[in-house]
Amino acid sequence: MTSKHKSGMRLPTELRPSNRRIEAFSDAVFAIVVTIMVLEIRIPDDLAFGDNSAALMTFGALLATYALSFVVVAIFWGNHHYLIFTLPKADRATLWLNNNALLWITLIPIVARFLGAHPTSPRAAAAYAFVVMCCTLSFSLLRRHAARISENEFHRALHHRVLRRIWPAVAVYAAAIPLAFIEVRLAWLCLLILPAMFFLPIVRAEGKEIESMYEKKGNADG
Amino acid sequence: MTSKHKSGMRLPTELRPSNRRIEAFSDAVFAIVVTIMVLEIRIPDDLAFGDNSAALMTFGALLATYALSFVVVAIFWGNHHYLIFTLPKADRATLWLNNNALLWITLIPIVARFLGAHPTSPRAAAAYAFVVMCCTLSFSLLRRHAARISENEFHRALHHRVLRRIWPAVAVYAAAIPLAFIEVRLAWLCLLILPAMFFLPIVRAEGKEIESMYEKKGNADG
Amino acid sequence: MTSKHKSGMRLPTELRPSNRRIEAFSDAVFAIVVTIMVLEIRIPDDLAFGDNSAALMTFGALLATYALSFVVVAIFWGNHHYLIFTLPKADRATLWLNNNALLWITLIPIVARFLGAHPTSPRAAAAYAFVVMCCTLSFSLLRRHAARISENEFHRALHHRVLRRIWPAVAVYAAAIPLAFIEVRLAWLCLLILPAMFFLPIVRAEGKEIESMYEKKGNADG
Amino acid sequence: MTSKHKSGMRLPTELRPSNRRIEAFSDAVFAIVVTIMVLEIRIPDDLAFGDNSAALMTFGALLATYALSFVVVAIFWGNHHYLIFTLPKADRATLWLNNNALLWITLIPIVARFLGAHPTSPRAAAAYAFVVMCCTLSFSLLRRHAARISENEFHRALHHRVLRRIWPAVAVYAAAIPLAFIEVRLAWLCLLILPAMFFLPIVRAEGKEIESMYEKKGNADG
Repeated sequence: MTSKHKSGMRLPTELRPSNRRIEAFSDAVFAIVVTIMVLEIRIPDDLAFGDNSAALMTFGALLATYALSFVVVAIFWGNHHYLIFTLPKADRATLWLNNNALLWITLIPIVARFLGAHPTSPRAAAAYAFVVMCCTLSFSLLRRHAARISENEFHRALHHRVLRRIWPAVAVYAAAIPLAFIEVRLAWLCLLILPAMFFLPIVRAEGKEIESMYEKKGNADG
Repeated sequence: MTSKHKSGMRLPTELRPSNRRIEAFSDAVFAIVVTIMVLEIRIPDDLAFGDNSAALMTFGALLATYALSFVVVAIFWGNHHYLIFTLPKADRATLWLNNNALLWITLIPIVARFLGAHPTSPRAAAAYAFVVMCCTLSFSLLRRHAARISENEFHRALHHRVLRRIWPAVAVYAAAIPLAFIEVRLAWLCLLILPAMFFLPIVRAEGKEIESMYEKKGNADG
Repeated sequence: MTSKHKSGMRLPTELRPSNRRIEAFSDAVFAIVVTIMVLEIRIPDDLAFGDNSAALMTFGALLATYALSFVVVAIFWGNHHYLIFTLPKADRATLWLNNNALLWITLIPIVARFLGAHPTSPRAAAAYAFVVMCCTLSFSLLRRHAARISENEFHRALHHRVLRRIWPAVAVYAAAIPLAFIEVRLAWLCLLILPAMFFLPIVRAEGKEIESMYEKKGNADG
Repeated sequence: MTSKHKSGMRLPTELRPSNRRIEAFSDAVFAIVVTIMVLEIRIPDDLAFGDNSAALMTFGALLATYALSFVVVAIFWGNHHYLIFTLPKADRATLWLNNNALLWITLIPIVARFLGAHPTSPRAAAAYAFVVMCCTLSFSLLRRHAARISENEFHRALHHRVLRRIWPAVAVYAAAIPLAFIEVRLAWLCLLILPAMFFLPIVRAEGKEIESMYEKKGNADG
């Protein structure tokens, strides 16, 4: 850790080679996770010429779960984007906290497929909520590490501000797990509410503010 | 938005980190969308030693639909290429308009597989036309945003010029949807005409002109 | 084309944004083509505890075809590497000649799977030879275009030198197509000889020479 | 090889175009290898509403094998990261030693799927150990080449230090192959011990030390 002061300051953050490769690897994983979910979604052959409302419902559920998962993965990608950007260095702990986050992200297609095929199953909804909750927690671990190793006071403050906003999200996903076994529709509500809230004007405004702060400081560092 | 003037001018467009990651993520999604369609195309085992004209026809239809979809995705990728290049900054709206465009692009393999398996189905042709129309519209939303946030008068003029050319394309795909239920061959014609026109000398000449304008100004900015 | 002189000289080749995105998109396509072939290769479940020599043979044929196709795609990737590096600009013709080459590359998994499943089928060997021949031809079209638009006399000479070496390769793959229907083993020989020759000392020495020439001039340009 | 002195010194290592493309291609292959393993893991439909302990066990074995393989591939990716970073040039030998390493990496999903489906099969455990052993050996060949062509004495010393640590790892995987046929649980132990050891404090400390040395010298070179 003693070399941090010297090497961390020399190159602008966004050009440091190790960060660049973490970005490249992570971007590819995010892109593939988003896209392989599509491999599972087939328009039922019955619908080509005939009518089959059961097949249509099945297809609709798969498509809706895909759209939800696309938005969830895209939100995580956006967070990752700003998080890696502020990392002062790509040490071994960063690498493995990032790998841990990616491992949970790659489980999303598995639970998305299960939930898409069984949208009324309490277990499917609970499994989906559990995996997204673990994604959120693993991103928080990465962010906490970033806050700890950063020497930029401004970045640290931003990380702590975002970290405080994480707990309500974790609580909603945690609540979805037992709720799924009481009433699966309540679990679905929990799964939908956070991606939907992300687009609310008030949340967007705060996000915009944080992002513009990141950008300003990030450029000032370089 | 107040930080746009300062931060947007400092680095040449193509080196700004956030644009770079949007590019990387989008390129990966485009590449995977193009390639996973191949997973669905199998040469029928019957054709290894015996003759089976039905199997050959099925395979031919899948292959033709793949080639068409490859060209469609590649045209969108080319447009994306020039569009991102002129984006002054990668704000949250840009991110999500881009995610929206990518979401529609990832639906192309689903409808391509359905149309390839059922080339005479009116619904399959209509579904394909609908998804490509939505891709076109979602790219236009991204471009309109780029035109709005750009401070470069030249880029704005180019965006508006391209935006005007979008409506005939949207109209052709929109027309294909009802036409499919009257005569599926007319819908196919609509699906084929635009990718084919893209290679006509007159369209190519205009495209070349626009691209060389982009390049010239893009470099001048940097 | 009039802007070529000015813009082509300003930035070192390897930093020009449009070339960079062609590289990124192509690299992703090459990487996915190589990797999705693996999705088709399953170790037969029968082999977990019992013996089944038929299943073992089938698996062996799939694995051998995969290894061959990996080497073929990797050779094309290596050529693409040096080709894009010398492109003075990424104009629309370059983009579409590149897309054409990628389209043929994405067909390799389809014929590899067919040949792996039916290694004694004349049609499978002929289809494989046909697709690899078309890949070679489409790369030559791209290279001829590069030779034409390049202003660097040295690059032009190198391109012409490589182009002359293409014809024997095309001839071998073309010969494999009729040979497959006479004796499938001769077609296999044609398919194996070129990737094998690539590693012969004499061919490697010439390749090394050409590459070091590219590198030297490429750096001198930048 | 005569041009090495001149061209290898001119640009900082991490900006040399040919290294960059090897990185990009390799990162994409690593990312796809990690992610396509997920395509094989399905939560059994029986578990949506009913209980089926056999299906649950099967799913658990697949998931555990996936997690193990994710860690194995991520360790190789991390090593690759530091290895490519120190390569003085991307010559043809580097390219093909890298391709060889990637070929073995792409076989991991095949044996992971087989081991996940048959966790008690001696052959499956032996096949898995064999492939990971070959990955380790192929990375050592690449590293030995890097040590040979490097002009940086410091990098050479580091490479030799890491190369000495490779043999115990190869020995453990080699031992797992015969052990699998005596007692499959011992083979599993061999497969688990190395990824687990990677996270032991003492190993982590040494790894950290080596990495910080790489970083320091790498930056000093640029």
